[in-house]
Amino acid sequence: MADEKVMVIFQPSGVRGEVPRGCNIIEASRLLGVDIEAPCGEKKVCGKCVVRVEEGHFEKYNIHSSMDHVSPWKEEEEKFLNAEKREKGYRLGCVAEVIGDILVFVPEESRAGKQIVSKAARDIHIEHNPAVKLYTVELKAPDFENKIGDFERLTNALTREYGLTNLTIDIVALRKLPSVLREGNWIVTVSVWNSKEIIRIRPGFHAASYGVAIDVGTTTCAAYLCNLQTMDVIATSSLMNPQCKYGEDVMARITFHMTTPGGLKRMSDDIIEGVNDLIKKVIKETHPEKKKVKQEKGYTGPDIFKEVIKEGVVYPRLEMEDIEDITIGFNTAMHHILLGLNPEYVGLAPFPPVIHQSMDIKARDLGVGINDSSYLFVLPNEAGFVGGDNVGVLICEEPYKSDEIQLIIDIGTNGELILGNRHKLISSSCATGPAMEGAQLAFGMRAAPGAIERISIDPETLDVDYRVIGQEKSRKDSKPEDMKAKGICGSGILDVLAELYSSGVITKTGVFNKKYLKDCKRFRMNADTGQPEFVLAWKEESSIGKDICITQKDVRQIQLAKGALYAGCKLMMKHMGVEKVDKVKIAGAFGTHVDRTKALVMGLFPDCEIEAIAGVGNAAGDGCRAALLNVQKRVEANWCARNVQYLELTVEPTFEQDFSEAMQLPHMIDKFPHLQEVLPDYILEQGPKGPKFPEKN
Amino acid sequence: MADEKVMVIFQPSGVRGEVPRGCNIIEASRLLGVDIEAPCGEKKVCGKCVVRVEEGHFEKYNIHSSMDHVSPWKEEEEKFLNAEKREKGYRLGCVAEVIGDILVFVPEESRAGKQIVSKAARDIHIEHNPAVKLYTVELKAPDFENKIGDFERLTNALTREYGLTNLTIDIVALRKLPSVLREGNWIVTVSVWNSKEIIRIRPGFHAASYGVAIDVGTTTCAAYLCNLQTMDVIATSSLMNPQCKYGEDVMARITFHMTTPGGLKRMSDDIIEGVNDLIKKVIKETHPEKKKVKQEKGYTGPDIFKEVIKEGVVYPRLEMEDIEDITIGFNTAMHHILLGLNPEYVGLAPFPPVIHQSMDIKARDLGVGINDSSYLFVLPNEAGFVGGDNVGVLICEEPYKSDEIQLIIDIGTNGELILGNRHKLISSSCATGPAMEGAQLAFGMRAAPGAIERISIDPETLDVDYRVIGQEKSRKDSKPEDMKAKGICGSGILDVLAELYSSGVITKTGVFNKKYLKDCKRFRMNADTGQPEFVLAWKEESSIGKDICITQKDVRQIQLAKGALYAGCKLMMKHMGVEKVDKVKIAGAFGTHVDRTKALVMGLFPDCEIEAIAGVGNAAGDGCRAALLNVQKRVEANWCARNVQYLELTVEPTFEQDFSEAMQLPHMIDKFPHLQEVLPDYILEQGPKGPKFPEKN
Repeated sequence: MADEKVMVIFQPSGVRGEVPRGCNIIEASRLLGVDIEAPCGEKKVCGKCVVRVEEGHFEKYNIHSSMDHVSPWKEEEEKFLNAEKREKGYRLGCVAEVIGDILVFVPEESRAGKQIVSKAARDIHIEHNPAVKLYTVELKAPDFENKIGDFERLTNALTREYGLTNLTIDIVALRKLPSVLREGNWIVTVSVWNSKEIIRIRPGFHAASYGVAIDVGTTTCAAYLCNLQTMDVIATSSLMNPQCKYGEDVMARITFHMTTPGGLKRMSDDIIEGVNDLIKKVIKETHPEKKKVKQEKGYTGPDIFKEVIKEGVVYPRLEMEDIEDITIGFNTAMHHILLGLNPEYVGLAPFPPVIHQSMDIKARDLGVGINDSSYLFVLPNEAGFVGGDNVGVLICEEPYKSDEIQLIIDIGTNGELILGNRHKLISSSCATGPAMEGAQLAFGMRAAPGAIERISIDPETLDVDYRVIGQEKSRKDSKPEDMKAKGICGSGILDVLAELYSSGVITKTGVFNKKYLKDCKRFRMNADTGQPEFVLAWKEESSIGKDICITQKDVRQIQLAKGALYAGCKLMMKHMGVEKVDKVKIAGAFGTHVDRTKALVMGLFPDCEIEAIAGVGNAAGDGCRAALLNVQKRVEANWCARNVQYLELTVEPTFEQDFSEAMQLPHMIDKFPHLQEVLPDYILEQGPKGPKFPEKN
Repeated sequence: MADEKVMVIFQPSGVRGEVPRGCNIIEASRLLGVDIEAPCGEKKVCGKCVVRVEEGHFEKYNIHSSMDHVSPWKEEEEKFLNAEKREKGYRLGCVAEVIGDILVFVPEESRAGKQIVSKAARDIHIEHNPAVKLYTVELKAPDFENKIGDFERLTNALTREYGLTNLTIDIVALRKLPSVLREGNWIVTVSVWNSKEIIRIRPGFHAASYGVAIDVGTTTCAAYLCNLQTMDVIATSSLMNPQCKYGEDVMARITFHMTTPGGLKRMSDDIIEGVNDLIKKVIKETHPEKKKVKQEKGYTGPDIFKEVIKEGVVYPRLEMEDIEDITIGFNTAMHHILLGLNPEYVGLAPFPPVIHQSMDIKARDLGVGINDSSYLFVLPNEAGFVGGDNVGVLICEEPYKSDEIQLIIDIGTNGELILGNRHKLISSSCATGPAMEGAQLAFGMRAAPGAIERISIDPETLDVDYRVIGQEKSRKDSKPEDMKAKGICGSGILDVLAELYSSGVITKTGVFNKKYLKDCKRFRMNADTGQPEFVLAWKEESSIGKDICITQKDVRQIQLAKGALYAGCKLMMKHMGVEKVDKVKIAGAFGTHVDRTKALVMGLFPDCEIEAIAGVGNAAGDGCRAALLNVQKRVEANWCARNVQYLELTVEPTFEQDFSEAMQLPHMIDKFPHLQEVLPDYILEQGPKGPKFPEKN
């Protein structure tokens, strides 16, 4: 029975295949490669993985599907599916087990969208000193006068001409040495790693070598392909972390490891495959129009350079084997999972990681398919979940070289904080949860097409205008049916909160002000939950056939996130003994898109000059890039990881109280006198005035 | 057609299986794992791989075999198979291609015998300083006061207690760290390689770790399993080099690489598999009576030690993962083939190897299945074919620490020579060919059961007495049919030559003295070759149904070998500027079994005191063992490899003349006055007297 297979067909994709009888629908979707949202990692608490099991015989697919072909209804599903839904065949994908052939419909809101990731490379200053350096040498062919071996012939020349001594060579590179020496007619270009090991030998002269800096976020992975000699960023690319299907946050993934035999291996394999895909993507960027261009431009240079000319510029045409170095940074849990290290203990108090220090690992030992003999430099971990990504932020922003007190906030799936200057550095991690990124909200979603990204609410009429990713025009300038809104993403969340508060729809404590219920259609009580909600987009403007709302619970989630962030910053300042910071840097995609004034007003972080607030883009990724191009940055990274003082916020005695105070909106508004010029009057007084609806007849 | 499979059955083993249509019978035998002698590496020149293709329908195997099912007769086969043989279905296995189902009979003389290898470990002095050292530490469990990561917790303790700094850890070992720390309740034993890298962590206290020294000869591989702490040799084992099927000598194997696509990979895979088998064999030696003994003796100690008690002695019970270090030495060609390095150029003048210096290679990178994170230390190469095996001899015998001029002769498939003392060292390689090991003779064979190993010939009657490996009694004390002689092996060769010469059957120049033809049955002209031959064992004493003879050509082969050796030694002495050596050491199995007097008389090497001649056993293997147990010996090995002066004998102007002079038997007998006491008068006069036959009527 256990080995028996059953047929599952997913609609609307039409993907079909056999799965083991008894697996749940989410497991079936993974086996068949269908992406269904499962943010909680099958803990049955998020209710995102709703699917519909179809009844009947489907001629086209030659399948008889029936509700009897899935396991019986369970209590956990009642929280998310009412009687009507149940009647129609809706189930939670992580609960319902497949016991016979079924056809499953995945509603649009349950489909995992492809996020639009924008992690472009910033122009940062990096000293040129890559770990992999190139040396070209011309050797004499062996004769009876000098019959020394190929390797010694090469290293003797490298010593003589470049002063390199005690070189070793990787066995895979060595295997190619005899033929490459002869193919290059005894002129070769050698790639030497850390002045220690020969990792590649190419025939003839080569001026360039390449590396990739990779930033593996909980949700998004980004890669920067760099010329290790010119330091140019040749291409950038990004993709969703393939582990998202095991849970949105790291705890869900650690739980997946602890509850699923072979779970760690599966997650590790997936992210390694993701890293390979990512490298392939950036490499493909170097293949523009390819040979065609070359021929058109009449390029007749040596083919050995594998160059492509595009608009007069010569581009390299790279392959996987041309990647000779990789640096990679991630939080501690992602670090552990990718390297196949048990992440269990980093998730349990007192949260010790398996290793802090950086590692040089042969790419082949991890299954990363670049130049065979090359290494991957894994950035060191700080403490707890604060890993190499935060070290990347540190070595990129270098607060330890500054006199100014800097507060650096990296809002990813968690919030990571750095505070300090050349005298002292503190870091911490605060459980903002993924709300700031749009997750765990009723209609939250990633920054993918269909996501509402900007919202304004008329404080007088409570009329809503918004913009949707993938749509050129705003709601006001479009037909309702053209909007095709699907949900709300991270960059829209803060807007909503600020606008609802400014409009008086929610109060200082985050409670919906029910006095506007009767006058405003958008403001209503949800029939199922009995809780108030505010409609941002009507059913006819949506692609999911439903009104898109922000609920009381959503407001609470955002309050929790911003409260955690604010309280964390405050506690760090207290530890540091400072009242005010000189600079606030917001890293990550959130930092790039956030409205600085609204962030400050809503109390995301403590008081500072508005001009002192700056988005610093993907600083974690830029730090990885710095480590790729300057080997000294790797030393600096290890220094940072051991010298930043990690503050475990949750054990601080005042944290609970600070946190609950910080949840209020707007927090201590009267303490921001310098904001008077940029904020509307009604906010700077004792609170918003509330909308004025026309008197009803 | 090309993909078509045909059935081949080998008799008498009964091994059967499908092979690609068109492959030759030797290829088929390899694919099916049947060992057929093919010393020349399918160059069609040795005629050893004779097989018989059977005609008819074989009910039992349900196969119809026919001569038509192999490719037509070829000219190359005529040299080895006369018309009668041809008629009976005999073919050369390397020529005849399989084009239909066949049943093949492999005659006993074509079967590759399993050699009895005796490479026991000698008692040599080694300083204790292994590359892999053990450290046991007790750690405090993490708490909020000290929540540092597992790896840093461990290395901090290793620094504090043992002064070890800057340790790294292999990723595979790191993966086990969290569970091992907790399993051992924070007491662990760490294996550190070269004071640099952690390669293993075991829970609790461990007093022992293990390593294997391996000597890969062209023909034989030997392994010594050692306790790295006590330096005890726990077990030794040996096996035939699986590459023998590609050719007996290294040139045949290099040719196989150059003429067979994927040939290098095949040979490399085979020897790696051989190394794994060898390690398994020595490990199995530590499993005597296993658990039974343990229970009988009522052993109740910690199971963690996996010990076995046998006759009151506690033995470790090892598994592959318990092997934490390997040293390996071989000639340059075997080195290249095992490591997958192109051996082409080391076989072409001026014979540059791919690399001289030693290498540390992760065992997993070569597919050697010991402790995952461990290294293999590959001994350095000297020059030409003189590789790490000769370096092993050097670091074992240490002539560079001696005032005496030592001549060290390692007779393997080639002869490798070392001459010198603390002031100067010379090495060279001489093409003795494999004759000294019994190969390339009409009835030559390896030292396997059935081989004639000792021979004496009555100088008066030319009666022969001999001993056969595997038979307790000599010919004189046995029935003829009990002898089951199959051929003649290395240690018998020198006996034959000396005895035939002493008896006057061959002259000073190595020519058979035809005047005894008419009087002695054993001495006759071969009908096929027209050449004289001498019968050592009659058909009825043999297991191959043939008289076992030594031919004129065989005598020439031995003369060539001993001439090359003698001339090589002489030239080295000339270079060194010495007339006489103080000591002659003969390494290898040949050295162990050789009759010192006969060797000196026959002119294997230049004049010296007979007491100054010593067999030193498998010095190459002992050198590998020294490098395993004392890491300083690895430094010494690299020093030796670069500081021994390699002499290319073949380009020396007088070599040809010295060589042809040295072929005479016995060489300059009158220059050995001190031998008068041990040699019979008739040799010391102008030559042997010759037998005296009774006058015929």
